[in-house]
Amino acid sequence: MRMAIDESAAAQGVSSPNPPVGAVILGRDGTVVGRGHTQPPGGPHAEVMALRAAGAAAEGATAVVTLEPCDHTGRTGPCTAALIDAGVAAVYFAVADPNPTAAGGAATLRAAGLNVEAGVERCAAESGPLRPWLFRQRRGRPLVTVKLASTIDGRIAAPDRTSRWITGEQSRRRVHAQRARLDAIVVGTGTVLADDPALTARADDGALLPHQPSRAVMGRRAIPVGARVADGIAPLHHIRSHDPAAVLDALDEALWVLVEGGPSIIGAFLAAGLVDEIDAYLAPMVLGGGAASVEIPGITTLTDAHRFSLAAVDTLGDDVLVRLTRTDDAV
Amino acid sequence: MRMAIDESAAAQGVSSPNPPVGAVILGRDGTVVGRGHTQPPGGPHAEVMALRAAGAAAEGATAVVTLEPCDHTGRTGPCTAALIDAGVAAVYFAVADPNPTAAGGAATLRAAGLNVEAGVERCAAESGPLRPWLFRQRRGRPLVTVKLASTIDGRIAAPDRTSRWITGEQSRRRVHAQRARLDAIVVGTGTVLADDPALTARADDGALLPHQPSRAVMGRRAIPVGARVADGIAPLHHIRSHDPAAVLDALDEALWVLVEGGPSIIGAFLAAGLVDEIDAYLAPMVLGGGAASVEIPGITTLTDAHRFSLAAVDTLGDDVLVRLTRTDDAV
Repeated sequence: MRMAIDESAAAQGVSSPNPPVGAVILGRDGTVVGRGHTQPPGGPHAEVMALRAAGAAAEGATAVVTLEPCDHTGRTGPCTAALIDAGVAAVYFAVADPNPTAAGGAATLRAAGLNVEAGVERCAAESGPLRPWLFRQRRGRPLVTVKLASTIDGRIAAPDRTSRWITGEQSRRRVHAQRARLDAIVVGTGTVLADDPALTARADDGALLPHQPSRAVMGRRAIPVGARVADGIAPLHHIRSHDPAAVLDALDEALWVLVEGGPSIIGAFLAAGLVDEIDAYLAPMVLGGGAASVEIPGITTLTDAHRFSLAAVDTLGDDVLVRLTRTDDAV
Repeated sequence: MRMAIDESAAAQGVSSPNPPVGAVILGRDGTVVGRGHTQPPGGPHAEVMALRAAGAAAEGATAVVTLEPCDHTGRTGPCTAALIDAGVAAVYFAVADPNPTAAGGAATLRAAGLNVEAGVERCAAESGPLRPWLFRQRRGRPLVTVKLASTIDGRIAAPDRTSRWITGEQSRRRVHAQRARLDAIVVGTGTVLADDPALTARADDGALLPHQPSRAVMGRRAIPVGARVADGIAPLHHIRSHDPAAVLDALDEALWVLVEGGPSIIGAFLAAGLVDEIDAYLAPMVLGGGAASVEIPGITTLTDAHRFSLAAVDTLGDDVLVRLTRTDDAV
């Protein structure tokens, strides 16, 4: 199952709005004879990709899948039928499909005489690449992560607006790897006008990674002709609103959205209660002046603070990454 | 030696301006027959305390000491003489005494026929309770640590000045344990006037810990009659200056000083190049308004930033403690 979860990572961002699933086929002798992950919408699901890789070795094999195989015909046929037709003897999956349209796979497989085990490594799968999709199924909106990148005193730029580079190379590398798994990055028109960011996912050598997230620019000002977000490398959504809910409505197929700023945009998402987690990259330096990482108009007293839970702490070179998640419910 | 280093922690803050040393006496069969640490100035050194605990068992024993035994007569006699007189056969120590007045202990012990080994676990001892004393020997001023306690967006108080409690119970406990090992805490008159802090080192039940650091208040405004820093629990120094160097000059016997704020005081120490390490306690919340943790007037561009190295990251409940140290030289 760990291998299936790893395999599913390659589908993240690519499969949306479908779930990024991974599948591994184990032959009769227990060796891996095929692996696969969900292809872009309209393409084959993970099970079909893995069965193709396994070929005749799927006969009598065990399929290990991160999500319950689907039982319905959409743009592709049901995965249950593909597994039964291939002669698979057993199916282990991690997470039951919460979507009523696609559910029922386990029952269909059992009715066909296959040995089915549900809930295998469920927690690992739920906190892996499936997490944003599961979140969307439950909450009807994408999972929203906020990125902060600041000095240890919470500054994102000096008074003269210089900000390159506060965080180091390893932090930037993680941001690019994360972007390659996102559906969209949200910034304000102010950030586009001031910094002209590309918001692309790039490798160390500057080459574009295979998947690029959409650019979602919020605010009423026009996006300049020639802005890098308008270069066509990824879709551009200009949401002429300051309402974070309107932005998420516009991203109706997105599973996972990263809000990169500026400070007022991040503040608006917090004030709207639409932040599920915060990735705070903290550089080992003190500025003592310049813009703060978050601005929320009207905040008055300490009880107004937005409280989160500490999820994880990592070091990235000399930077620290603090990961916070909602306290009010599990993400 | 690890036991001797642990033993020396009890002397930290208490022994100043003398080094906080720990000593362990191992009997002929290798068992611990005595331990001791440096007493307040004028009192016995660690070796003498450990020898007293060992009594007759010191005959033929091995003494393990964090610092080279002193060879001079100050307010107490030389430790070398005490070790020789007790019939100790061998002395292992971690750090050679850099102070020319006290040095020469190893040579005296060898001349008396003792087996002497220097440099045992030297790195562990140098980064332990001896560190501020070694720093002062080299640099002629106390080791200066800055404490920041803020939200993840770098705020220390809401716009209405409410700030209790941003960081959690485990962070506060660590601060109190640290205070009990300090020589002085530095705050500005503004903090005294606004928050009336006690700056005492207390246990969980509110009881005062055995050692209390001095209160060093900098700034020209008067300290109000009845201010908690003037309650006599620990010495009060009012330095009527905004110059951090003047503060350190006034604390001429201090080995280790903690600067607790406010933001302008911390900024003044940074601008003066007088910050050796930063302990940043970060709470898992976002305020989006209110005072920042550090203010440095005249900072303009990113190259003005004060850069440090990441020394350690700890979690304290839901808080994160990021420890930074100077990059320009080892502390």
